Amino acid sequence: MKQYDFEEERVKQEIIKLGAKRVLIQLPEGLKPEGPYLAKVVHKTGALAIVSADSCYGACDLATTDAESLNVDLIIHYGHSKMLKYERVPTVYVEARATVGVEKVVEKALPLLKEFQTVGLATTVQHVQTLDFVREILLRAGKTVVIGDAGRANYPGQVIGCEFSNAKSIANEADAFLFIGGGRFHALGVALSTSKPTIVADPYEKTAYSIDDEAWKILKQRWACIEEAKNAKTFAVLVGLKLGQKRLEKALSIKRKLEETGKAAVLFAIKEITPESLMEFPTVDAYINTACPRIALDDASKFQKPVLTLNEALVLVNEVSWEKLCREGLFEN
Amino acid sequence: MKQYDFEEERVKQEIIKLGAKRVLIQLPEGLKPEGPYLAKVVHKTGALAIVSADSCYGACDLATTDAESLNVDLIIHYGHSKMLKYERVPTVYVEARATVGVEKVVEKALPLLKEFQTVGLATTVQHVQTLDFVREILLRAGKTVVIGDAGRANYPGQVIGCEFSNAKSIANEADAFLFIGGGRFHALGVALSTSKPTIVADPYEKTAYSIDDEAWKILKQRWACIEEAKNAKTFAVLVGLKLGQKRLEKALSIKRKLEETGKAAVLFAIKEITPESLMEFPTVDAYINTACPRIALDDASKFQKPVLTLNEALVLVNEVSWEKLCREGLFEN
Repeated sequence: MKQYDFEEERVKQEIIKLGAKRVLIQLPEGLKPEGPYLAKVVHKTGALAIVSADSCYGACDLATTDAESLNVDLIIHYGHSKMLKYERVPTVYVEARATVGVEKVVEKALPLLKEFQTVGLATTVQHVQTLDFVREILLRAGKTVVIGDAGRANYPGQVIGCEFSNAKSIANEADAFLFIGGGRFHALGVALSTSKPTIVADPYEKTAYSIDDEAWKILKQRWACIEEAKNAKTFAVLVGLKLGQKRLEKALSIKRKLEETGKAAVLFAIKEITPESLMEFPTVDAYINTACPRIALDDASKFQKPVLTLNEALVLVNEVSWEKLCREGLFEN
Repeated sequence: MKQYDFEEERVKQEIIKLGAKRVLIQLPEGLKPEGPYLAKVVHKTGALAIVSADSCYGACDLATTDAESLNVDLIIHYGHSKMLKYERVPTVYVEARATVGVEKVVEKALPLLKEFQTVGLATTVQHVQTLDFVREILLRAGKTVVIGDAGRANYPGQVIGCEFSNAKSIANEADAFLFIGGGRFHALGVALSTSKPTIVADPYEKTAYSIDDEAWKILKQRWACIEEAKNAKTFAVLVGLKLGQKRLEKALSIKRKLEETGKAAVLFAIKEITPESLMEFPTVDAYINTACPRIALDDASKFQKPVLTLNEALVLVNEVSWEKLCREGLFEN
């Protein structure tokens, strides 16, 4: 059995219903290996499948422009829930729910939660269907359980890489968070957004652990990064070219604020923010990234120059204090 | 003095003439360090400059879609001559002619040309203005000189990374080629397209050398690559998403031909073809690249699976012989 539900029947029905002749398949990195197989599923309907082989880290990065350029009738976007308010090209989201069980790993996490009475739950869309069951396990263990529903995500308890409102909305009540899911990326986001102890239950690796040391390390790095950026003379403000990451007005605003504090600032438009692409500009001392805020946070050590999020830049220009930033979140706005 | 002529006055006049309020600056990798400086030049006109920080390897990669997405009135594209027949967004090309002298390095190249009577000249747009002068030096040395003008490039003798018709048009007459310019990329293209001895005169490094051993090595690699691809069961045919690199019809045609020879084939759409992005697909055994043909040729050793050009794929499906391919060029069509 596959680790994820690719909803093959629904996909075929949607293609037939729309009468789509040409379909673009978009997958996040972890699901890309399934691309050729999923193309075959599309071909069974008589439509032509084209697999997008460029990077895709979220529903913010919907391949609308590519779809238009290839005269595609339908995008099938796997692995993320709908995020953009509307799509210029018809789009089907296949959330790729995980088929792996979570019971054992949640039980493994219980000892790590023993000091905490009220536990907040958070997870990615892959595991939202398990939260009721996870709650039951915790209730049986004598815990109080809270699941946030701030109305911005698609499901209660769901978090995405740059949006943790569900977790934040219950951070005051919760003594700690239990995050269900793989990798460290989303769990770190929960810890950094809520400043609460965060335990990870990873059903793929079948391990439970605390992410707090890592979150603390990142916080120290961010502080150092802001301090280093204070010495910078020339800034580049990055404007994202991915569909849901373009914030030109915010970029113009922070450019103005930097100039008011005596810094030079220039706008850069960029789709893929990599250490290599930023290395091409030796006269730039520091970057403000208005695109995906997670890039700088998670890969800070790979970048040779400070790369700040928009919120961190507000600390730099003395509009927000470091304490308030830590309280309200490094990357959400 | 700068190594290249950025035509600052003309750029400012063009911005003013067009009344452009927002300008996108696009630079190839070698010129990217000048981005912040060139933004300042634009700012002097009162327009807002945005520097494109994504990769750009040719005029085929004009940032029209990005310009539209950013509501830009004018693209200033540096380092390449016009290639596309028309632009959806007004575009000024600044060819960035080199200011470095070529006399000494051409004289250094003369001993390497001593066996050859008739010498063909080839260069990039950065040095086309030097060709008459180079011809004089060679004439004085007793050579016969030919400069091709096949009518496809913007200047006689000019070559670009994927288009060597000027060199090919005189390959029968020439005993050898003298290439004026930096790097090995274009010189290799001359050697591979013409199968003639090719001497490089590099005015930046101030060295002259033969590129023939390297061209021969690449030819052997390509032969091995095609042979390896013959064993592949599943192919992905890459469709480029860069403006001048999209050849969907050719991709569909080679997909059909592969299927007729019993291979499985799936279409991939891709903007940045990197070894990392292709590594995401373990079930694909080999790739046919219909986008920039130079990627596979120059970086073959970095790719873990065979990546063939469209012309090489025609050898694979027995439509063209290896000998004909070598005669007519590995990558041009």
